Amino acid sequence: MLYIVGIGPGNEDFFTKEAESILNNVDLIVCYKGYEKFIKRFNKPIYTSGMRKEIDRTIYALNEAKDKDVALVSSGDATIYGMASLAYELRQKNNINVPIKVIGGLTSASICSAILGAPLNHDFCVISLSDLLTPLDVILNRVKCALEGDFVIAVYNPLSKSRKEPFLKTIDIIKNYADERKINYIIGIVKNAGRDSEEYKLTTINDLINNLDEHMSYIDMNTTLIVGNSNTKIVDNKMITPRGYLNKYLKD
Amino acid sequence: MLYIVGIGPGNEDFFTKEAESILNNVDLIVCYKGYEKFIKRFNKPIYTSGMRKEIDRTIYALNEAKDKDVALVSSGDATIYGMASLAYELRQKNNINVPIKVIGGLTSASICSAILGAPLNHDFCVISLSDLLTPLDVILNRVKCALEGDFVIAVYNPLSKSRKEPFLKTIDIIKNYADERKINYIIGIVKNAGRDSEEYKLTTINDLINNLDEHMSYIDMNTTLIVGNSNTKIVDNKMITPRGYLNKYLKD
Repeated sequence: MLYIVGIGPGNEDFFTKEAESILNNVDLIVCYKGYEKFIKRFNKPIYTSGMRKEIDRTIYALNEAKDKDVALVSSGDATIYGMASLAYELRQKNNINVPIKVIGGLTSASICSAILGAPLNHDFCVISLSDLLTPLDVILNRVKCALEGDFVIAVYNPLSKSRKEPFLKTIDIIKNYADERKINYIIGIVKNAGRDSEEYKLTTINDLINNLDEHMSYIDMNTTLIVGNSNTKIVDNKMITPRGYLNKYLKD
Repeated sequence: MLYIVGIGPGNEDFFTKEAESILNNVDLIVCYKGYEKFIKRFNKPIYTSGMRKEIDRTIYALNEAKDKDVALVSSGDATIYGMASLAYELRQKNNINVPIKVIGGLTSASICSAILGAPLNHDFCVISLSDLLTPLDVILNRVKCALEGDFVIAVYNPLSKSRKEPFLKTIDIIKNYADERKINYIIGIVKNAGRDSEEYKLTTINDLINNLDEHMSYIDMNTTLIVGNSNTKIVDNKMITPRGYLNKYLKD
């Protein structure tokens, strides 16, 4: 049996009871080598490999799962930019006959929303700016459509040392909408969400553009941005998107 | 102290360790009366009230939290259509001086994605079709923008006995895009996700429209729909949105 287990940001607090119980009971845990520290506490045999070894790791886990209970660990939620779809695809392609069960986990958008206040408290989009597997024009079109629909936007993988173009073009698009609509969109920037070194900043699109170098040296691949919609506001230093109860029931 | 705690679908399996620990340590739990069954096991004093009593319940929790540790429980994630933004707004409006800490939980989109396969494995939107607090034209514009951007879409609160129009207009919009693009969008329908009576169906927009009465008698307020994007496919009876690894690394 292959379990594909989302472990959220990795800190013990965010494991679900189900993830905990499965990792306590499998024969082998397979994961990216950077996540080994999060699953050592289960005292199980561990197989790790590095970045861009996702296919090898998944095939290894599928093959081992023929006669063992194996957990393939994903950070966040296993089905949100995680290993789950790849496992289903590779099982079919390589004709490997093992059952798969996916165990959901807390995705970064949830964790960041709780840290910042409640910016995701209305309709939202999740967009990854990594153009390694997705053409940049598809990504940028999604950013435009998300703004056009006045969605709150959670931006994953915003920026890396070698990949700045998607970020720069994205903030350009946001700035254009901001100017056109005269809305200085609030942006929450969360680094290492749910981990010991967690930190965050609240800013706006105008401030981000005006202090671009400073913000870009802060943001990295472990950063998630949440861009507010036209109703998002700051309440007691927290970033809030109202659901609408007060407008409806407490009109003064 | 007021903790706003997301408990996912309510079944013990989906509680995070942090939610579990907080509910074990507070003096009072406040929740919607339908969720009492999920938190009775903590053996704490419980205050409940009914639907559309969100404001009263939140004010009660804030006031009690002045001299107690109180948990205001939300299903799913407390910041995703949950009680968190309302609590921040009411704290400010009523000038109640208590600290708030939000504890994230598994939102229905995560749970449903794991049940169906991995449909959320690429950029996605979450849209609620409830027009109680949001104008219908805003909702429908979001549906259009989500399709325009080729997002996967998780649809919350699709349909109730008295509220059919948002659903009918939404599937009409999806059908128009489907015809124009010649894509028969795959749709996963999950009922009571993460609860004992959980069940799901995989269908397509064309089938949904052709058997509308049957599908509409199945769908209720405890149902979440996931509408695939143009790349979503069925792999071994599971609904999968590929991340793109195989296209990039295993071109045959």
